[in-house]
Amino acid sequence: MANYVAPLKDMTFLLNHVADSRGFHQIEHFADFDPALVSAVFDEAAKFAGQVLSPLNQPGDIEGCHFNEGKVKTPAGWNDAYRQFCDNGWLGLALPEAYGGQSLPRFIAAAVHEMWLSANLSFVMFQALTQGAAEILLAAEDDRLKQRYLEKLVTGEWATCMSLTEPGAGSDLGNTRTRAVRQDDGTYLITGQKIYITYGEHDLTENIVHLVLAKTPDSPPGGKGVSLFIVPKYKVDESGQCGELNDVRCVSIEHKTGLHGSPTCSISYGDEGGAIGELVGEENRGLEYMFILMNEARLSTGQQGVAIGEMGYQRALEYSLERTQGRDALTGDTDVQIVRHPDVKRMLMGLRAQVTALRALSYQIASRLDLAEVESEDRAAHLRFVALMTPIFKAFSTESGNLMAGTTIQIFGGMGFVEETGVAQLMRDIRVTTIYEGTTGIQANDLVFRKVQGDQGEALNELIADIESDFASYTALEIAGSETEMLLQLIAVLKESTQFILQQGKEGRETQLCGAVNFLELMGIACCSWMMMRTAVAAYEQKQQSTDTIYLNNLIALSRFYFAHFTPKVLALHQTVISAATGIQDYQIEQ
Amino acid sequence: MANYVAPLKDMTFLLNHVADSRGFHQIEHFADFDPALVSAVFDEAAKFAGQVLSPLNQPGDIEGCHFNEGKVKTPAGWNDAYRQFCDNGWLGLALPEAYGGQSLPRFIAAAVHEMWLSANLSFVMFQALTQGAAEILLAAEDDRLKQRYLEKLVTGEWATCMSLTEPGAGSDLGNTRTRAVRQDDGTYLITGQKIYITYGEHDLTENIVHLVLAKTPDSPPGGKGVSLFIVPKYKVDESGQCGELNDVRCVSIEHKTGLHGSPTCSISYGDEGGAIGELVGEENRGLEYMFILMNEARLSTGQQGVAIGEMGYQRALEYSLERTQGRDALTGDTDVQIVRHPDVKRMLMGLRAQVTALRALSYQIASRLDLAEVESEDRAAHLRFVALMTPIFKAFSTESGNLMAGTTIQIFGGMGFVEETGVAQLMRDIRVTTIYEGTTGIQANDLVFRKVQGDQGEALNELIADIESDFASYTALEIAGSETEMLLQLIAVLKESTQFILQQGKEGRETQLCGAVNFLELMGIACCSWMMMRTAVAAYEQKQQSTDTIYLNNLIALSRFYFAHFTPKVLALHQTVISAATGIQDYQIEQ
Repeated sequence: MANYVAPLKDMTFLLNHVADSRGFHQIEHFADFDPALVSAVFDEAAKFAGQVLSPLNQPGDIEGCHFNEGKVKTPAGWNDAYRQFCDNGWLGLALPEAYGGQSLPRFIAAAVHEMWLSANLSFVMFQALTQGAAEILLAAEDDRLKQRYLEKLVTGEWATCMSLTEPGAGSDLGNTRTRAVRQDDGTYLITGQKIYITYGEHDLTENIVHLVLAKTPDSPPGGKGVSLFIVPKYKVDESGQCGELNDVRCVSIEHKTGLHGSPTCSISYGDEGGAIGELVGEENRGLEYMFILMNEARLSTGQQGVAIGEMGYQRALEYSLERTQGRDALTGDTDVQIVRHPDVKRMLMGLRAQVTALRALSYQIASRLDLAEVESEDRAAHLRFVALMTPIFKAFSTESGNLMAGTTIQIFGGMGFVEETGVAQLMRDIRVTTIYEGTTGIQANDLVFRKVQGDQGEALNELIADIESDFASYTALEIAGSETEMLLQLIAVLKESTQFILQQGKEGRETQLCGAVNFLELMGIACCSWMMMRTAVAAYEQKQQSTDTIYLNNLIALSRFYFAHFTPKVLALHQTVISAATGIQDYQIEQ
Repeated sequence: MANYVAPLKDMTFLLNHVADSRGFHQIEHFADFDPALVSAVFDEAAKFAGQVLSPLNQPGDIEGCHFNEGKVKTPAGWNDAYRQFCDNGWLGLALPEAYGGQSLPRFIAAAVHEMWLSANLSFVMFQALTQGAAEILLAAEDDRLKQRYLEKLVTGEWATCMSLTEPGAGSDLGNTRTRAVRQDDGTYLITGQKIYITYGEHDLTENIVHLVLAKTPDSPPGGKGVSLFIVPKYKVDESGQCGELNDVRCVSIEHKTGLHGSPTCSISYGDEGGAIGELVGEENRGLEYMFILMNEARLSTGQQGVAIGEMGYQRALEYSLERTQGRDALTGDTDVQIVRHPDVKRMLMGLRAQVTALRALSYQIASRLDLAEVESEDRAAHLRFVALMTPIFKAFSTESGNLMAGTTIQIFGGMGFVEETGVAQLMRDIRVTTIYEGTTGIQANDLVFRKVQGDQGEALNELIADIESDFASYTALEIAGSETEMLLQLIAVLKESTQFILQQGKEGRETQLCGAVNFLELMGIACCSWMMMRTAVAAYEQKQQSTDTIYLNNLIALSRFYFAHFTPKVLALHQTVISAATGIQDYQIEQ
């Protein structure tokens, strides 16, 4: 299978001209991060992704992880790659220099992260865990914990994992049954079973710092009684070194349909009396801390949709140029490259258009997180935007990623169904991304009830204003054609759907619940359409000062293609949003 | 994994009240096939599917097929099941009694076929091959071939396979390089390499009758120079018995992402001088004969979408009743069955609604094939309908099947990604169905250019008239609500899109080619909406004379749900159909 080649040109264009039209280095705080520096970082990352991580991807899928008597062996090459990854400083790219990181802004880290995800999703899943765990420790403001753990995590000397799910507590973490009992020395004894723990056990690091949700005795019921604990695999002594084994045992790993290289573990805590844990922050605030990591993980998961889409696009483009078959329906030429069949070109453009729009959205989110750090007067608005976007990007990008993996296989025809080709792995790997870190249904409820209604539509109305402003810029250009009408309809249904969601009271709750996923999809397409308007405008502007005409014209064509092939879906979704309970209310499940 | 339970109630309802509202046994020719007989056949088939085939499905996926020195060993249990399948007469269910079949009408055979496909798709793939091969032999009107092969095939004593594809001739069979040279005795010497041959080699039967496309020397170029040959694995002597091994060799089997139990073979013909073949019918008419089998295979493939959807629905329903998690958002109850979450109920109903609509469509097609046999004055119209429906049903049902497999996994959450659960297999198995027997793109071109334009819209306009008539019946009922407006829009865009397709001349050809798949999807949803109108009307009528109120009300609710959640997609698809070339024309593939 061909190795991944980072799409540096596309990434750079979207970063420099679409995510923030000012250019980041024009902002004082980011002045150091000029295009030359960004380009140097990207080049190194691209090399590592393409030459080290990507070649391990298919072998890792084939070999998978090995489980034997509590130990997990990762696929051949994982260990070397991990060491290089950490030594090169990639793990702590966006984490504080004070703890061994690089303190790079998000807008750079997001693009680099996408490269890892494209090259080898199974391998790099530990990174978002480390990023999130570090942010929890930074937020919990416990100097002792920071001192003991942060640098080890940021440098990759130790790894981390997030022990949330239990057999009876998946989406509903309030049901957590794992117990934590405080000891006289201030530590806690942890007992319980956790499942689906990504990189819960492995052979990459000396120690693994488990972040475990558990309940203390007499804690309040439900989510408000859940606390977060650090439970290291090997106990950490006062000098910060690994001591004896904690009462933590990997019971098994899952046999999954994809992500074979990433061990998904069942972990038992306290089989022999109790694992020693340290409380993070305060008791009963566990879900709050966990959501720091979870929001990080949701953005990373959203990027997985982009990353798998990009990998599929690269493979499909290569194949459709190589493979000849059939007659060109327009010219009559025989044995043509299959890319000359309009339907194949449509599928390929569909991949690139979706990847472009979603990638631009991910940079938009990353840049607003950066701006929130430096623009204090707009901080709240930036964070509102990110909060609104998190469920949309997480769910819509992964749903799109699944469809894109299917399209990639479709372009390969029969070859796509043969495992050696490697594209079936994309479908198998991406499948869980609409499930983990909160299913699409959970993202949709978060969007409708917390992010839109809970906010009285403030963030969403700001977004609509932004979209209208970019629509005005787009339609002012001479390139805008009949698709302007479609974009006008988009803005109209976006407003109508938003009004509908906001105006529904209690009696409309079932309709909202039944149509939440449709509303999220509508928002996803609206945001992607928005990004494509910005892309078209940026490409048009660049054309005035660049000779890279084919490339820039293609971006404009890609945008117009998106408006013809994706934007119209909002018409259907809006209809469904407003009549979503039809039939559902009256239907009785036959048991 | 739970075994398949044939949905006899749904099947019987759709067959008796939706496919043909008269009831088939009221038609003189089918008088023997009264509900009691149909029910007896269904009961036996359901037992065999549920108790024999279904338990072999997951083990077959895990074990897969074994290849060793040209021989293929099918998974454990395959041989026994095959023998029983043939002994019980299931193989020749819809084939002539004169050759050992049962001569049952299509409308019965279609439902039974769906049961096999749900229970064990990998296993039963040989059946459509036998059905199609038998029809070719019946059509070719060669008494000698019929005598030598038909009964052996129909009874399953020998199996068959279809050797079409070559490395350089996939969708474009005109590129066939396999050669056939006529010998003095009238047989042909066949040499060439074929790939992707389903059940091309196995251990189920004494002999395998290969149907091979090949070109004779000096044949016309392209598809018009392709002939069809019978090439038995073991030569057949004058008494009809197996003689010595023919020059036919299985070179390898594919390592596929799904359908592990069905061997997909690369076959080499004539490595040692030439395999002996017998011409079917006349030279250069090979594609014409092959299309008899291909149309059969396309209808069977369409049913695979229904069948996998049904299996997923059964599993998801079971799981969503079993699994408890979270709070009922309407009542506040905690730890509820997940089916009580509106989004889960929406997904479940989506599965059942799609399966119901597509199943009804498959019966509609089967019944029109039956009626074509007995209603001579309407024969042409029935066959026009089937010809129009074949690409729509094949492509739309399999595309839907892929989405349904995804939805099934989604309902299972993390469990769905774990292979032991068994639902990931549905996704892996169904993936190739939008590719084999003609990709979705090929079906779409067949629809637009052959079945609509080639027919000046005659069949399509007849279909629209049928839809309008059933729309009138539906809206006359008191159950019809606000969705009537959506159905009116459906009919409007159906007419507009049809006009658009018919009116485009040469200059519109690129738009048609770019939007063909969208047009096909629009037609698929229109046809399913039509079937759901008929289902609702039939359920309403049955309610007047039945006490099975919950069941019948559910069918009505399911129909209305379809109109709210699926029918609106036609609004988007229509927009795309009429502007499909936007951006594609201007986009230059960067090589």
